[in-house]
Amino acid sequence: MTPQQIIEGIHQGKLRALAKAITLIESQRPEDQQRAAAILEELLPRTGRSLRIGISGVPGAGKSTFIEAFGMYLLQQGKKVAVLAVDPSSQISGGSILGDKTRMELLSRETNAFIRPSPSGDTLGGVARKTRESMLLCEAYGFDVIIVETVGVGQSETAVAAMVDFFLLLQLPNAGDELQGIKKGVMEIADGILINKADGDNRPRAELAGRQIENALHIMKPKSANWQVPVHLVSALKKEGMGTVWQMLETYREAMSETGEFEEKRRRQAVDWMWSTVMESLKYSFHHHPKVAALLPQIQQSVAEGVTTPGMAAKRLLETFKRH
Amino acid sequence: MTPQQIIEGIHQGKLRALAKAITLIESQRPEDQQRAAAILEELLPRTGRSLRIGISGVPGAGKSTFIEAFGMYLLQQGKKVAVLAVDPSSQISGGSILGDKTRMELLSRETNAFIRPSPSGDTLGGVARKTRESMLLCEAYGFDVIIVETVGVGQSETAVAAMVDFFLLLQLPNAGDELQGIKKGVMEIADGILINKADGDNRPRAELAGRQIENALHIMKPKSANWQVPVHLVSALKKEGMGTVWQMLETYREAMSETGEFEEKRRRQAVDWMWSTVMESLKYSFHHHPKVAALLPQIQQSVAEGVTTPGMAAKRLLETFKRH
Repeated sequence: MTPQQIIEGIHQGKLRALAKAITLIESQRPEDQQRAAAILEELLPRTGRSLRIGISGVPGAGKSTFIEAFGMYLLQQGKKVAVLAVDPSSQISGGSILGDKTRMELLSRETNAFIRPSPSGDTLGGVARKTRESMLLCEAYGFDVIIVETVGVGQSETAVAAMVDFFLLLQLPNAGDELQGIKKGVMEIADGILINKADGDNRPRAELAGRQIENALHIMKPKSANWQVPVHLVSALKKEGMGTVWQMLETYREAMSETGEFEEKRRRQAVDWMWSTVMESLKYSFHHHPKVAALLPQIQQSVAEGVTTPGMAAKRLLETFKRH
Repeated sequence: MTPQQIIEGIHQGKLRALAKAITLIESQRPEDQQRAAAILEELLPRTGRSLRIGISGVPGAGKSTFIEAFGMYLLQQGKKVAVLAVDPSSQISGGSILGDKTRMELLSRETNAFIRPSPSGDTLGGVARKTRESMLLCEAYGFDVIIVETVGVGQSETAVAAMVDFFLLLQLPNAGDELQGIKKGVMEIADGILINKADGDNRPRAELAGRQIENALHIMKPKSANWQVPVHLVSALKKEGMGTVWQMLETYREAMSETGEFEEKRRRQAVDWMWSTVMESLKYSFHHHPKVAALLPQIQQSVAEGVTTPGMAAKRLLETFKRH
């Protein structure tokens, strides 16, 4: 398919054209990347109309069960749903999240749903960029809701939070000591928290966990004066609470749109994204500069051992980089 | 004074030589910077023997009262104490923290204490680098404890946490809603938390605030498996709890030294510092590249408005930067 055919296919609602465009975005080949850029540029005016939701949670929190249950709920409401993923470990582990279609068996069979596994890449930045651009294509195609899942490896939550409107954190119904394990900084980027598996015997523990998290949130400065991060109890397995989750998202969109924060966040995200792309590329050029790379091991060690100050080491590396 | 005279002066414990060396570090003149680098390189083998403590807290938390009380306590224990600061706002506000000597009247009159206001600079990175290098000079001079204060503007806590062994957060005895105001991410970098002003009528509120903070800490993953962040109640005004604070620091140093984490943290900090210096310099070169600077306003706007993707904008900027 030519770029023009792909663009027309996406206009006409052909899933095959969308899948092909995403394949171009994920490709490492320069000519594919050029075609991907042309397609994206052309479709850009049609983007921006979906609600972008990021979802994370510790392994075992029930992310795929939740996405399936929530996705099916949205389809019932007449929405079109795309599910993407950012998994920087997919290269190493072999099995990327969402790679296994059987994980969301019901959803993957629906015509108004689109599930795409995490792209691979050598850096988190690369993986995240591909997902973000795929998200824009899904928007141009006409999906109403885009869910971006992450396994929470390294800084992947931050990367996902930087591309979505609402970042949702799934927690297990553990309380007290067992609750320990909320990764540093993750609770602070969440716009909403769900205690999943809040069913049967788990219910009282889920309620306790919910109160503890509410208390912790209480002493932290809110991200926006107009939004208090809610904590809700759900059961993805029993399909309970999906309406509450959707209502929370609608309330958020309304409240933030009213104050202009919704659009402002997207504008800021786009500019931040540009800068992190620039900085990542500069870092890459620096690390892969032959003379710098040759100097690095020795200079890093001498800094670690306190023989050279970080300032002097940085100066030497920068001079090497700029000279050659 | 020549660099050699300054080095000898520092060896001989002359405060004037130390002050002169720090002035060279803070200077913008290239020849001063060269001399500062030579002095630092020469003294580097003598550094690393102090305990480095970072202190932050909201305005009104009583940071200077605490540093004075704690500093006087340390002097009584036979320790030598240096107090430095990182205040990126000092340029704008005119009055930098610690600039006003009367703030720590008792401490500033002591011969075994050294107080230096925050250096000025156009970036937080610049201010922080100067303070970090001054800290190394203070170590070479023979101070046992170095306290680095920050007002908590922007990312200054992170910069200070990246140069110290122990990051101490001062809180007011407010509970519940009033407690809101712990800056995002700050509680997560703290190695210890003090509720100051826990005296008289404030005592019950301080106890409640302490419990709330302990609960919040409880559900977050600890930085080290060997250190549970303690919360202590103190009164800097009444000089209560200073022994407890020192004991906490000693316990920390022992526990972390035993597992090797203490030294490992310093090694990692030095290497991270080198990288952030490199990246900051690259960013500076990029922003101040005439062709890039000319292109920036228009390109940033077109990204914010969704006319150009962040990826394409980054590519254009990078090509401009590399071509010229």
